[in-house]
Amino acid sequence: MAETYKLTYFNLRALAEPIRLIFAYAGVEYEDVRIEREQWPEVKENYPWGQLPVLQVGDKTLSQSNTISRYLARKFNLVGEDEWEAAKIDELADALTDLRLEWRKFFMEQDETKKAELKKVFVETTVPKYFTKFEAQIAANNGGPYLVGKNLTWVDLLTAHFLEFFEVSEPGLLEKFGALKKLRDTVFENEKIKAWLDKRPVTQF
Amino acid sequence: MAETYKLTYFNLRALAEPIRLIFAYAGVEYEDVRIEREQWPEVKENYPWGQLPVLQVGDKTLSQSNTISRYLARKFNLVGEDEWEAAKIDELADALTDLRLEWRKFFMEQDETKKAELKKVFVETTVPKYFTKFEAQIAANNGGPYLVGKNLTWVDLLTAHFLEFFEVSEPGLLEKFGALKKLRDTVFENEKIKAWLDKRPVTQF
Ligand SMILES: N[C@@H](CCC(=O)N[C@@H](CS)C(=O)NCC(=O)O)C(=O)O
Ligand SMILES: N[C@@H](CCC(=O)N[C@@H](CS)C(=O)NCC(=O)O)C(=O)O
Repeated sequence: MAETYKLTYFNLRALAEPIRLIFAYAGVEYEDVRIEREQWPEVKENYPWGQLPVLQVGDKTLSQSNTISRYLARKFNLVGEDEWEAAKIDELADALTDLRLEWRKFFMEQDETKKAELKKVFVETTVPKYFTKFEAQIAANNGGPYLVGKNLTWVDLLTAHFLEFFEVSEPGLLEKFGALKKLRDTVFENEKIKAWLDKRPVTQF
Repeated sequence: MAETYKLTYFNLRALAEPIRLIFAYAGVEYEDVRIEREQWPEVKENYPWGQLPVLQVGDKTLSQSNTISRYLARKFNLVGEDEWEAAKIDELADALTDLRLEWRKFFMEQDETKKAELKKVFVETTVPKYFTKFEAQIAANNGGPYLVGKNLTWVDLLTAHFLEFFEVSEPGLLEKFGALKKLRDTVFENEKIKAWLDKRPVTQF
C-alpha cells in the first residue's frame, strides 16, 4: 500500500517549499495543509516541537525541514548515487541553512538603520561568499547544471527555492552568478516543477 | 584498503567533538588536527567554506559538522535500523542545532546586561522546552536509555556532548532531567568513549 503523506506548514513557501518541490518532482501525492497565522496559537502545542513544517507519514510524525526533505529524497531516489554524493548534498544543504540564518539577521531586525546595515552586509559580503562557493561546486561537477552528480538531487530543488527566496529581498541578487541562475532556471523549467509553480498558492515568501 | 581520515578543527570540543566521539565509539583511527587561533587567518582560505570542522577522507573533503557525523555514522552503522530511524535521528540532531543557536545568542552578546537577560531566557525557558521534548522522545523509545531504537546511535553521542557543553555555561542544567542525565552517563561510561575522554586534550568548550 502506498504511504499517505500530509505536510503541515503556514501559507508560505519559506521552509516547506523544498519539500513541496520534492513531492512535485517525484510525482507523489500528499496533502498540503496550510495553517493561518491566527489559528496557530490554538494548535501550536499539537506539534511535537511547537514548530512547522511537520510531515505525517501514515500515523508517524517527522519535524525539521531538511530532515523531511532528506527522508523523502531517500525514498524518491534524489540523494545522489552513493553515500559520498549523499554527504556532499547534505553539506550544501547545511551551508544553505547557514546562509538563511544570515539572511534572517537583517530580516528580523526591527531598527531600520541597523536593518539597512545588516542587509548591506548580507547582499555585498555574505551572499557573494556563499554563491561563489556554490558556483565552484557546480563548476567542479562537470560544469553542471546540477550541484552534485549527473542527475537532479534534492539539493538542486532546495537551492533553486532559496535563490528565488533571497531574490524577494534583493531582486537582481543572481545577476553575477550565471551558473546559479542556470541551475534555478533548469529546476523551474522542469515540466513537473513548472506544473506545480503554475498552480501553487501565490505568497510573498 | 582502509580509508584515511583527517579531522581538522580548533583546539576545542564544540562542533568537532561529536565527530571525535563517533570515531572513538567505532574504534576507527583518524588524525585529530587542531589549529591554533593565531594560525587561523593564514590558513582559513585553504578550507572550502573558510570554516571548520573539515573532514578529509583520502583526498576528498567534507564540511559541516552534522553532515560529517551523519556520513561517518552511516559507514559505522550508527544510524538506526531503517530509514525512519535515520530520519528521527536527523530530526533530533537538527533540534540540537536550533538549541545551540539559541545558546549562541547569549554567548556572543557583548553587552553584559543583555547577555544576562538572554542567558536567563535560555536557561529558564528554552532549555526546559527542548529538554522536555528530548525526555519525551526517550520515554517513547521504550524508556531509553537511548533516543532512537534499541542501540546507541550518533544522536546519542551528539546529545551527550551538547549536554556537557551547555553545562559549562550553567552547571546543574540537567538537575531536573533524569532521563537525559542517564543518557549522558550511559554514553560517557561506555568503555571506548571513556578511554577517549581520559586522553583527550582538556579545553573549556
Ligand atoms: N529548524 C526548523 C525551524 C522551524 C521554524 O523555525 N519554524 C517556524 C516557521 S518558519 C515556526 O514554526 N514558527 C512558529 C513558532 O515558533 O511558533 C526547521 O528547519 O524546520
Ligand atoms: N554550520 C557549520 C558551522 C561551522 C562554524 O561556525 N565554524 C566556526 C567554528 S565553531 C569557524 O570555523 N569559525 C572561524 C571562521 O568563521 O573564520 C558547521 O556545523 O560545521
